[in-house]
Amino acid sequence: MREAKKLNVLAIGAHPDDIEFGCGGTLMKMAKEGHDVYMLVLTKGERGGEMRVRQREQEMAGRFLGAKKVFWGNFKDTHIPSNKAIISMMEKVIKKTNADFIFINYQDDTHQDHRMVAENAITSSRYVKGVFFYEVPTSQRFDPTIFVDITDVLNNKLKLLTLHASQVSKTGINKLSILESAKACANFRGFQARSRYAEGFKPLRFLMSL
Amino acid sequence: MREAKKLNVLAIGAHPDDIEFGCGGTLMKMAKEGHDVYMLVLTKGERGGEMRVRQREQEMAGRFLGAKKVFWGNFKDTHIPSNKAIISMMEKVIKKTNADFIFINYQDDTHQDHRMVAENAITSSRYVKGVFFYEVPTSQRFDPTIFVDITDVLNNKLKLLTLHASQVSKTGINKLSILESAKACANFRGFQARSRYAEGFKPLRFLMSL
Amino acid sequence: MREAKKLNVLAIGAHPDDIEFGCGGTLMKMAKEGHDVYMLVLTKGERGGEMRVRQREQEMAGRFLGAKKVFWGNFKDTHIPSNKAIISMMEKVIKKTNADFIFINYQDDTHQDHRMVAENAITSSRYVKGVFFYEVPTSQRFDPTIFVDITDVLNNKLKLLTLHASQVSKTGINKLSILESAKACANFRGFQARSRYAEGFKPLRFLMSL
Amino acid sequence: MREAKKLNVLAIGAHPDDIEFGCGGTLMKMAKEGHDVYMLVLTKGERGGEMRVRQREQEMAGRFLGAKKVFWGNFKDTHIPSNKAIISMMEKVIKKTNADFIFINYQDDTHQDHRMVAENAITSSRYVKGVFFYEVPTSQRFDPTIFVDITDVLNNKLKLLTLHASQVSKTGINKLSILESAKACANFRGFQARSRYAEGFKPLRFLMSL
Amino acid sequence: MREAKKLNVLAIGAHPDDIEFGCGGTLMKMAKEGHDVYMLVLTKGERGGEMRVRQREQEMAGRFLGAKKVFWGNFKDTHIPSNKAIISMMEKVIKKTNADFIFINYQDDTHQDHRMVAENAITSSRYVKGVFFYEVPTSQRFDPTIFVDITDVLNNKLKLLTLHASQVSKTGINKLSILESAKACANFRGFQARSRYAEGFKPLRFLMSL
Amino acid sequence: MREAKKLNVLAIGAHPDDIEFGCGGTLMKMAKEGHDVYMLVLTKGERGGEMRVRQREQEMAGRFLGAKKVFWGNFKDTHIPSNKAIISMMEKVIKKTNADFIFINYQDDTHQDHRMVAENAITSSRYVKGVFFYEVPTSQRFDPTIFVDITDVLNNKLKLLTLHASQVSKTGINKLSILESAKACANFRGFQARSRYAEGFKPLRFLMSL
Repeated sequence: MREAKKLNVLAIGAHPDDIEFGCGGTLMKMAKEGHDVYMLVLTKGERGGEMRVRQREQEMAGRFLGAKKVFWGNFKDTHIPSNKAIISMMEKVIKKTNADFIFINYQDDTHQDHRMVAENAITSSRYVKGVFFYEVPTSQRFDPTIFVDITDVLNNKLKLLTLHASQVSKTGINKLSILESAKACANFRGFQARSRYAEGFKPLRFLMSL
Repeated sequence: MREAKKLNVLAIGAHPDDIEFGCGGTLMKMAKEGHDVYMLVLTKGERGGEMRVRQREQEMAGRFLGAKKVFWGNFKDTHIPSNKAIISMMEKVIKKTNADFIFINYQDDTHQDHRMVAENAITSSRYVKGVFFYEVPTSQRFDPTIFVDITDVLNNKLKLLTLHASQVSKTGINKLSILESAKACANFRGFQARSRYAEGFKPLRFLMSL
Repeated sequence: MREAKKLNVLAIGAHPDDIEFGCGGTLMKMAKEGHDVYMLVLTKGERGGEMRVRQREQEMAGRFLGAKKVFWGNFKDTHIPSNKAIISMMEKVIKKTNADFIFINYQDDTHQDHRMVAENAITSSRYVKGVFFYEVPTSQRFDPTIFVDITDVLNNKLKLLTLHASQVSKTGINKLSILESAKACANFRGFQARSRYAEGFKPLRFLMSL
Repeated sequence: MREAKKLNVLAIGAHPDDIEFGCGGTLMKMAKEGHDVYMLVLTKGERGGEMRVRQREQEMAGRFLGAKKVFWGNFKDTHIPSNKAIISMMEKVIKKTNADFIFINYQDDTHQDHRMVAENAITSSRYVKGVFFYEVPTSQRFDPTIFVDITDVLNNKLKLLTLHASQVSKTGINKLSILESAKACANFRGFQARSRYAEGFKPLRFLMSL
Repeated sequence: MREAKKLNVLAIGAHPDDIEFGCGGTLMKMAKEGHDVYMLVLTKGERGGEMRVRQREQEMAGRFLGAKKVFWGNFKDTHIPSNKAIISMMEKVIKKTNADFIFINYQDDTHQDHRMVAENAITSSRYVKGVFFYEVPTSQRFDPTIFVDITDVLNNKLKLLTLHASQVSKTGINKLSILESAKACANFRGFQARSRYAEGFKPLRFLMSL
Repeated sequence: MREAKKLNVLAIGAHPDDIEFGCGGTLMKMAKEGHDVYMLVLTKGERGGEMRVRQREQEMAGRFLGAKKVFWGNFKDTHIPSNKAIISMMEKVIKKTNADFIFINYQDDTHQDHRMVAENAITSSRYVKGVFFYEVPTSQRFDPTIFVDITDVLNNKLKLLTLHASQVSKTGINKLSILESAKACANFRGFQARSRYAEGFKPLRFLMSL
């Protein structure tokens, strides 16, 4: 029986907390297993809070998650473009991290920034052997076929989301709803995956090593 | 402003409790609004419990839901066919109830009986102006576009599911998981619908009256 | 039986006459029922006629249709962008009209402006509970599942289209073909909807109130 | 410039008049061009009229269309099966006619017989180089990509449909609606095809000879 | 770093050699890695050769591949049904092998037996955490997202296919074409997978263990 | 029997050698049959080699293929935009060549330039009666339904690809892989088309003349 190989994992999100909602549980498990986890966050999320606060929260969340490093894009929130510059920027981070697995926002989404992340990352990740779309609450028609059981880390995933405290403190109801929707989503994907709580992914392309 | 017209609503399910999971909240609301609600259950669900017990539970659930009548098909659980006989049988119930709206199991499902209900009902309901697919935990790739807010009846929907007591009493864990998955599903569809708890439907065809 | 609630309805189109072709019959019926109908036309359609003439025609058509107001975008015909500015502009009109229902161009279309309207409106309308795509002759792979019977207003819909007289007068054949294609389309969607003449819609998301 | 080769064309339909509605114009044009056209009708359509009458009408329609021969399946109307027997029966006709092009009912349809024709014919025609789905009024989600301009034979297509007189004479309104829906459909597909009247097809597989 | 767990792998095919074409390389690699590989072949393939010969060839191929055992269904070639009996039969083999991964024929295929294997297996495998569709030359619209690099076993995969000697010896040209199409397919899927030769799979559902 | 009409054929590609890979065999056959073949290459491919060299290679390949003329866009490699300017530019070439058939890159592709060619060409070609997508190695989810047998010109297609010598000479391995992938692709599409080697196309719209 072969020993599982250490992987370099890169998650790309448009805003602070996208990655945590979509694949936070999976990343925590991978980090704990000894894989190297990196995050690339393309904007500071300044439409939803004070820029420096959100950046700090993201850095804390990255540490809690076990990420080696949070890379930052310098794009403006709600203005992520589709062009060669962003593709090249992503390519550099992919190269630097020597990523084996990439997790990205899904293309069918009501948020324009999420659509742009997906569109550009499809190009940037063209030589990567495992590319997976994750979902967030604004995703549409997302039908995952790959799942990761996150039952054992569900509580930590919820904690991870509360580290984005500026998002949480804005309204008590919102706080509830983000955590609640993360849990409902995990539960819903769980019964699709024949497990209790799961995160669901749609593979763009996955060369499985056996 | 025109007064909303009274509708005849027919829900068709393969087994006792399919309808309740998929559109129980919506039917309760419609019954309460004064619409006439009917149920057609094609098998007695004898693979999952004692036949007479399940039939009795379904009748009770029908009353609690506010249905005028539960019609029964006489098909064997896990053996629902695809043929002219079942199509004609459904047509008779559609005619008898003069159905304006029909709710049916979804075609992409791991349970063969659910697939058969959908396939046959697509034919039987061909002259009906509102035909809607509902989801159950075995449904796959179900992407609803029509939603009904069931926040105000969620607790009653959960009660409705507990009326299928033979299903509930079999294992405490199962009981939990049916209610829990119904709630998680309602929550998940809720945030897609911009409401708290919702049921989601896929229209086959809906002639909206204005 | 509950009384139907008054709705605020907003239709968004790239050019003068897009809305009329796609959902003119439905809007006329809704206006007549007492709902408040608004139109947002993003360009003056200056590639297909004199700008001021087309604007005047659109205003007349809006009145004939029963719209409360025609809002105008200031985009250049064939140059509608995809960016934050157009999203925000649409959001303002959605907020001002407090829209319950939004009708928009479809995303799969040979005309670039129609694609852009759809892409941006998917974002702008993200909190709206009823969002519907309509078709025009350049739409592709448009498979409606929601229909409105327009048999009783078909002639008025055709009159509505003739109010775009600059389009009509350019060639007798074109006049014929617009009216004829609108009628053939209504007839084709009619038999899909089990009615005589219908308009067909694809819901992006529809929270039905019961 | 190469001379166009004579083709053997086989159209398969569940009931008398399916073929005429779906590809009658195309077949008439092909027959007139000198190609050999054959029809295979799987039932006598006895649910919609007297069996011998419908058979006679179909034979007349076949002659008017220019078909070399109408083959008959001996299946019962509304009971077409999915099995090896029907596959083999179709294979024999395909072999006998040495068919280059095959036209068949579409798989997504509210009529069970149409679904069965499609499902079985997909197998029977597996070695045929041109296999095309046609639409009838009960087809759903039919998005043609191949079109044939039938402007010059539209009137003959309508005549062809009236040869199914038992269908026509049943009610004046029905007569109107069949002819009207055939014309509306041709007009609708026409503007998709950039022509006046067209028939639309979905290729399963088409090896174009150049 | 966790040690990779031993898996029970079951491949299901309609006829002798379906499994080998679709996932023979993957199975050989898994067997070599120490996983337990099982095959379930539903017919003896008697339409394509002498029954006992084909059965013997399949057993030899199973041994060469490294399978623990070849299970046999007793269905008639070209007559595989869709019913409870075949579902139960598959369920028994799934239970006996305690399968973690299941590989099955794809549902969109010109061969009716392949469609039936897929349809029934979707039900039988409903509690299995990894279910994957494989392709054969009759598959249609097969868009794999999961790939296995088979470069190092390609020659053995081709040998495996030649063990079905009755198929090979029938015509020199056929022999060539099966091996050639297997190699072309591996090459085609290879460049999609960013590797030299690959097998492609479509996941129905895959709960990845991390 | 009508004589086949001479056609004007225009192939549009993002970079030198896209057209050759995707439809080079088909174009060679059409040119040989006496049709007028034109190419429009939107960039000089300067990211993959020296601009003037690549331009010269493309001109040579055009001559070898039998094209009347190679038109050039002046877009920058990897920066093809989506806007009115490129749409108009394509429209001019379509008008100048009076194109009956247009071949274009496919929209679902990891290369951003290929996506842009497709998106813009869908608009530019809106009045053209035959519009076909071709595939290249970066295309995704490409499911052709129209095929052309290129068995008799396969070797010439491979020669055609070697005329892009700067691409070939860069690495012996790359040379191999382009030719090898072109051959594997032709072989793979061949068995889908029931022929030995084929090119596969997805029709956007094809008005077949009979």
